[in-house]
Amino acid sequence: MQSFATRAALHVAGIFGMYLSVAMLLPAAVDLYYGHEDWKVFVFSAFFTGGLSLGVALATQARPPTVSPRFGFLLVNLLWFTMAAAGVVPFMMSSLELTISDAVFEAVSAITTTGGTVINGLDNAPPGILLWRSLLQWMGGLGVIALGLFLLPFLNIGGITYFRIESSDIEDRPFERLATFTFTLLTIYVSLTLTCALAYAAAGMGSFDALNHAMTTISTAGLSTHDISFGMYADNYMILWTAITFMVIGALPSSILILFAVRGRTEALGDPQIRVFAGYTIVFACAVAIYLRVSTGMPFSAAITHATFNFVSIITTTGYASVDYSLWGPFAVASAFIATFLGGCSGSTAGGIKAYRFLILYELLVNGLKRLIYPNMVLPVRYGDRPVEDTMQRAVVLFISAFMMIWLITTILLAATGLDIMTSLSGALGCLTNVGPGLGDVIGPAGNYSGLPQSAKWVLCFAMLLGRLEILAVLVIFTPGFWGR
Amino acid sequence: MQSFATRAALHVAGIFGMYLSVAMLLPAAVDLYYGHEDWKVFVFSAFFTGGLSLGVALATQARPPTVSPRFGFLLVNLLWFTMAAAGVVPFMMSSLELTISDAVFEAVSAITTTGGTVINGLDNAPPGILLWRSLLQWMGGLGVIALGLFLLPFLNIGGITYFRIESSDIEDRPFERLATFTFTLLTIYVSLTLTCALAYAAAGMGSFDALNHAMTTISTAGLSTHDISFGMYADNYMILWTAITFMVIGALPSSILILFAVRGRTEALGDPQIRVFAGYTIVFACAVAIYLRVSTGMPFSAAITHATFNFVSIITTTGYASVDYSLWGPFAVASAFIATFLGGCSGSTAGGIKAYRFLILYELLVNGLKRLIYPNMVLPVRYGDRPVEDTMQRAVVLFISAFMMIWLITTILLAATGLDIMTSLSGALGCLTNVGPGLGDVIGPAGNYSGLPQSAKWVLCFAMLLGRLEILAVLVIFTPGFWGR
Repeated sequence: MQSFATRAALHVAGIFGMYLSVAMLLPAAVDLYYGHEDWKVFVFSAFFTGGLSLGVALATQARPPTVSPRFGFLLVNLLWFTMAAAGVVPFMMSSLELTISDAVFEAVSAITTTGGTVINGLDNAPPGILLWRSLLQWMGGLGVIALGLFLLPFLNIGGITYFRIESSDIEDRPFERLATFTFTLLTIYVSLTLTCALAYAAAGMGSFDALNHAMTTISTAGLSTHDISFGMYADNYMILWTAITFMVIGALPSSILILFAVRGRTEALGDPQIRVFAGYTIVFACAVAIYLRVSTGMPFSAAITHATFNFVSIITTTGYASVDYSLWGPFAVASAFIATFLGGCSGSTAGGIKAYRFLILYELLVNGLKRLIYPNMVLPVRYGDRPVEDTMQRAVVLFISAFMMIWLITTILLAATGLDIMTSLSGALGCLTNVGPGLGDVIGPAGNYSGLPQSAKWVLCFAMLLGRLEILAVLVIFTPGFWGR
Repeated sequence: MQSFATRAALHVAGIFGMYLSVAMLLPAAVDLYYGHEDWKVFVFSAFFTGGLSLGVALATQARPPTVSPRFGFLLVNLLWFTMAAAGVVPFMMSSLELTISDAVFEAVSAITTTGGTVINGLDNAPPGILLWRSLLQWMGGLGVIALGLFLLPFLNIGGITYFRIESSDIEDRPFERLATFTFTLLTIYVSLTLTCALAYAAAGMGSFDALNHAMTTISTAGLSTHDISFGMYADNYMILWTAITFMVIGALPSSILILFAVRGRTEALGDPQIRVFAGYTIVFACAVAIYLRVSTGMPFSAAITHATFNFVSIITTTGYASVDYSLWGPFAVASAFIATFLGGCSGSTAGGIKAYRFLILYELLVNGLKRLIYPNMVLPVRYGDRPVEDTMQRAVVLFISAFMMIWLITTILLAATGLDIMTSLSGALGCLTNVGPGLGDVIGPAGNYSGLPQSAKWVLCFAMLLGRLEILAVLVIFTPGFWGR
């Protein structure tokens, strides 16, 4: 039974690996087009990954398993492991000559849509590799949305969906409906990416850059084709506001877009988490813009554009930087640090603690205070106009507590590898929230993760995966009970 | 009804203020003995405080109120406010010529047993003022124990008591019993302080220093009579280990000591929080000692003594420093930062998150993971061999979440006053946990809080009070419902 679930999960992962190997032909084609010899790397990677995946798939053929939580968690972890493993292959073999920890870090950072990089000299890197990074982020983003929509809710984990795809939407012909939703999701995701790419190009970005950045914008992922990220376009406000728009769209609940596309329903915009997300994003962007205007005398248009760009980038957990905001002074730096915790909406590609958790925490706190005065009062916790189930209430505060503890443990592990405290604190946080950059000279918005010790990179890889899979979905496979009979 | 509760609480606070004014005669006597003219300051302060308190007490005379949660919270806040206000008076008038924010900071830091100071030149400060600081910490510590034993449990807030003073212990003649317990508590507290002072003196500390440090050791408070704190005794390991012993005793649940004194029962040592507290203290002290030995080649006796002293000081939320441990390298610095969260046992003078909350969080997390695989499993949360009530489970994770949010909000407020991020993060944390020192050049173990902007000091005063009164007991009086009909 147990080995049967493992077998079945491996089978699905094998099939998934074959899809990924096909995806490798895209960068191969691009390298070939640009005349870069690394096209061979991708063709070889495709054969290697495809062959291995086929082998796994064949070796594990079996009847479809009963869907159990154990199978679900195994599958989730295996799919992300497969994505990481397939992602590593081209990095290992490319002309960049990365070490194994660097290749793994880059792959995990990409698939978890974190967007921290260890590659210096991106501007002269082979186009195939650049596309591969963007493609991994794009697929990683799609994966997270699918996970949030179709899998995690059935595993009693993860987010909240105010306007969910109700069972009535799928119950008449479930599989057909599910296929429709998947197809709709894919169509929306592709359309948004293409629209974003066209908008970038129209604003003056080169077509290759536009496509790559579109893929890493809509997935709120953050890898760039330039070492200085969007610093390349620091004076082109059209490009910056385009990025802001699509980062925000990427951080909205996917259910909104799907329901709009499928049913033409717009009331999903009333989801309370959107108001909270919009609220704190606007507060941070405006506060920092005013601070910049007052403390540095920066023209207001520049202050509001750069403050909004960089704080939307942090809060949506994208991780682009248009300038080195760590030089903006103490208030801006502390704001960037705190904003890293926030995150976007549930059901999006954004990471972090996320808006709905803050809303529910706030309600719980207010109720807790009221109950101190009126101990016998029954106070429902509400999310918008709906009551929040007891399980969800507990899950929210438990997640926040666990998140904080794991952040601090990761920090101390990083410090043990020799990193200074600010790099440790902000690196652990940036990776756990899937934002990307941290603070300080090494991994700040002007730096990258290449200079860290090898051991620190492995710690951060684990943190990125933990953060991406809502912590518990990863931790669960390390409990002894999971592998018991 | 509402104004009646306010009136009654003010009446108690007035009586309390009169006691505090009597306490001011102690430093007056000391100044007189040492021939320092500041004795007049204390006599005047005593008359001023005593007169004002008497006025308040007389103006608010009334029948004793019905004991309600509202009255309880009002009283707790008013008592601490009274202690702070009475504490400020001598600081304002002394020859040190402190500004009002400095005087308030010093008083609040003292009564909350935080132990951060704004006074430079302690070694030459008037002895009366030094004693007053120690006395405030000592009374603040006693106050917190009394609060935890007699008041907070009835307000459904605060700690856990594994071996509580059962109702059977008091129900036959409640007031007489309660008086016995208070008297026992006071006797134990005084005896421990005197024992500690004698031990310090025996180990080579001057008698005035010994008495002052004994008062701030047993209350895990941390103000010293020297600018360099226990750096003065860095080479006297007898003194350092004496301090370690009494800091640990101060961080143990007072119920243990009381039950032992009253009933001769020792089984209270089986309280699970003691194992957790001992566990993390030993792990941090040993890890840092080994790190010091390996990375700096320090002799092992020095490494283990200084690592244990400084980490016991942090974890018990005392805040002494024997050396500037911020120079011990990244792992030690990060460890000091993380250790600041931990705290001692419930029912002691220690602040921080506290051992029992970590234990319950761990249980909740393990249960949460198990329930992901077996959604219908009923899993009790246990504290030792007893089940933890649902209310307590919620309170623990809600406290941790609220603590973390308030810490981050305090950080951003501090950064807005112009402090760098490390000073903001560690200052907010050091004050909220009532540890005292932070990290960085300004407020690190070798510095103090004198150099901060005035506004930052007010923010930190609020953080210290929040931390000392378990956050919710302060926040509750700011809710609109509290002042409603």
